[in-house]
Amino acid sequence: MKPQVLSKMGRRTTEPPISWLMHAALSRPKLISLAAGFTDNTALPVAEARTALNQVLRSPKTGQPALQYGITAGDLALRKLTAAHLRKLDFQAVVSSSFSSSSLVLELKSRTRTRTKDEDEKIYSPERLLITSGSQQLLYLTAEALCNEGDSVLVEDPTYFVFLGILQSRGLRARAVRLERDGLDLAHLERVLQSLKRSGELRRVKLFYLVSYFQNPTGVTTSFGKKCGLLKLLKKFERAAGHPIYLLEDAAYRGLRFAGNDVPSALAVPGAAERVIYAGTFSKPFATGVRVGYGILPKPLFTAMKHIKGNHDFGTSNLLQHLVARALASGIYGRHVARLQKRYAQKARVMKLAIKKHFPSAVEWWEPEGGLYFWARLPRGLATGMKSKVFSTALKNDVLYVPGELCYADDPARRKPNHEMRISFGSASEKDIREGIKRLGNVLRKLLK
Amino acid sequence: MKPQVLSKMGRRTTEPPISWLMHAALSRPKLISLAAGFTDNTALPVAEARTALNQVLRSPKTGQPALQYGITAGDLALRKLTAAHLRKLDFQAVVSSSFSSSSLVLELKSRTRTRTKDEDEKIYSPERLLITSGSQQLLYLTAEALCNEGDSVLVEDPTYFVFLGILQSRGLRARAVRLERDGLDLAHLERVLQSLKRSGELRRVKLFYLVSYFQNPTGVTTSFGKKCGLLKLLKKFERAAGHPIYLLEDAAYRGLRFAGNDVPSALAVPGAAERVIYAGTFSKPFATGVRVGYGILPKPLFTAMKHIKGNHDFGTSNLLQHLVARALASGIYGRHVARLQKRYAQKARVMKLAIKKHFPSAVEWWEPEGGLYFWARLPRGLATGMKSKVFSTALKNDVLYVPGELCYADDPARRKPNHEMRISFGSASEKDIREGIKRLGNVLRKLLK
Repeated sequence: MKPQVLSKMGRRTTEPPISWLMHAALSRPKLISLAAGFTDNTALPVAEARTALNQVLRSPKTGQPALQYGITAGDLALRKLTAAHLRKLDFQAVVSSSFSSSSLVLELKSRTRTRTKDEDEKIYSPERLLITSGSQQLLYLTAEALCNEGDSVLVEDPTYFVFLGILQSRGLRARAVRLERDGLDLAHLERVLQSLKRSGELRRVKLFYLVSYFQNPTGVTTSFGKKCGLLKLLKKFERAAGHPIYLLEDAAYRGLRFAGNDVPSALAVPGAAERVIYAGTFSKPFATGVRVGYGILPKPLFTAMKHIKGNHDFGTSNLLQHLVARALASGIYGRHVARLQKRYAQKARVMKLAIKKHFPSAVEWWEPEGGLYFWARLPRGLATGMKSKVFSTALKNDVLYVPGELCYADDPARRKPNHEMRISFGSASEKDIREGIKRLGNVLRKLLK
Repeated sequence: MKPQVLSKMGRRTTEPPISWLMHAALSRPKLISLAAGFTDNTALPVAEARTALNQVLRSPKTGQPALQYGITAGDLALRKLTAAHLRKLDFQAVVSSSFSSSSLVLELKSRTRTRTKDEDEKIYSPERLLITSGSQQLLYLTAEALCNEGDSVLVEDPTYFVFLGILQSRGLRARAVRLERDGLDLAHLERVLQSLKRSGELRRVKLFYLVSYFQNPTGVTTSFGKKCGLLKLLKKFERAAGHPIYLLEDAAYRGLRFAGNDVPSALAVPGAAERVIYAGTFSKPFATGVRVGYGILPKPLFTAMKHIKGNHDFGTSNLLQHLVARALASGIYGRHVARLQKRYAQKARVMKLAIKKHFPSAVEWWEPEGGLYFWARLPRGLATGMKSKVFSTALKNDVLYVPGELCYADDPARRKPNHEMRISFGSASEKDIREGIKRLGNVLRKLLK
């Protein structure tokens, strides 16, 4: 029961379902959690962070500034390094890409390659780059700056459950768009947009939220072709909406690729950068305890979100920003990410082999090219939710996963799928991954009989 | 002009007026800024922070946890240290206090002294202590959890302008209560509450925002007697309001006392803790680049605000929390604060002497016992605002202050005073304080003729 004195937001905001999972983990010491989205403890750059911090605090140039207030938008040196870093990522991804060869995409690719330095500098500009406390804060600020209570936000189906929590807390509705193995189902998106247009709701849609790399929870990466198609569709419906419809590209896992080629971000889609909010982070690839993320924002949004962030906290801790800037500039960051990718590649391999060995063949599963998650789908009828037989039996056998249904928005247009699971290889050791998957496989085998 | 696509909040949130002052400072290299609320650069604990960080990252017990996600409420070790720290502060303040000897206060004092250990543990409990990104974030979360658009918030007149910015951004109204040399004008508060009750607006008032120590901008410290009276008055009007009316005590400057005795917080008012939101911070007394603040919250608010903070950022950076915990536990923090107090005492003395020497006698000014600010009041009719003669002449003479009018809420119940200024000794050197005050004195002398 929520006290009446709370605001509507205070009353709407609920305990995230994942908290319950964490409590469950704490109460069973032998439990192997394949639920947590934590990164690998043993892979954290403890010595590297220490080196970088000593460099920052020993230098007369950075020692005092690192401990003083900065400006709300973020340290300019870090913003320049970040903009250059992202520009390089996208350039390399475009040049080396193996993406679909449809004529549309080939044309876009050629236009992207020949984009001038000036155009690029406008897109990957520190002037529209906002440093935030993890990319999570960027998601929150975006919702604040764009959406009024009662507005709708387009999301993938399923999507990142904390974002769904933000929507619920802020009184926003989610409209879910089907996901395929290579990203969004564009035909379904068009039908959803048509239906929103017909019902008049399109005027209250300002945003599509897309987790574009190794999506949480499915591990799906959206192809560049689909990003192009998505932006084109959103643009097509802007007239009916009466305002821009932005793409919020959450690239939180991009740095954690361990197989295949990087995909260019939506910023690289020619002519579309003014509709893209790119949310990136250094937390996941470097250290989750160092909460530094960022957004590249269309100029009007940059200004509004900077002011709102000023009200939140005046700007992210300068010490953390200096640490990340030092790590980037010195090469510490690049070397660490390369090591981390190898480590996750190995852990993902271990999980894949264990799944192959222990999961019954009736279970469909998706292998990611990066990130932290496998996604498994049981035969319909075998539910995985927190009150299901599968979940309670797994818990009894000391293994935990995230029930897929937690990642689906409340959307009256479809029944919520309830027979999937997110399985993470992020924080568990190789031994625990093997044992955890074995336990889970045994549970599934037993219940599928 | 704000783009139509923005949310109501996005459109309401404006550039903080102080930004303009900072830009002005940057464009005049010889300018002495007595405007900035920055702390003293040369007093930042660079070596101490480095020592503490090395200890944190060298220790196998804290190295990895400092770089990993934590829990949203904050690191338990830091929360315990913080709760104990605050409890000790309040206990010492009560015991050594020289506050007013009215019978009411004497009785409260005696009850506070004899409060049992159990009662104290409930009040200063890590279980209701939330770690935030500076105390600024605590203010923001409080507004989110308690106030709906259109609600009113009671504030001191004048008050902290960034808090006024939060209110404006969130569509909240401010009702201003007069300030006297020793804090709030309680008789005026009662009249304001009566008038809100009569007009039916009291149902939309959930909060009194009080900057209780060396207030920004006036330097005023609210006496313990006034805190008692304030809480009693709020309680008296709760029936008419239909819900609790909380006191949000912003104690951001408490650690920066350099004269007189500490005043107990509102948590120490017997029987009132369930109505007090205490916002504290380690940023100002330790390092503003290390954004770690905290709140002690009534339980229902704790839960709601923790969930909202989860949506913002999952919790404040663990690395910063470990740094502060280490500094607290090792004594680094205590020693640094003692040094800092001496330093600010000296700078305040320099400013006082300069004001005495250079300000015309028609200018009234208030000397603080801590914090960063003097407050000066010119004769009525001599405006200090950004478009005033005083301001432009000061700028021409390369000295900057904060116009008092920026710190007054938009309250139709009174005319906004426009003839005051906030003068900070925080970041300027002693030499610049002398020279800056001299320049300002010359301007005032000239214009007062």
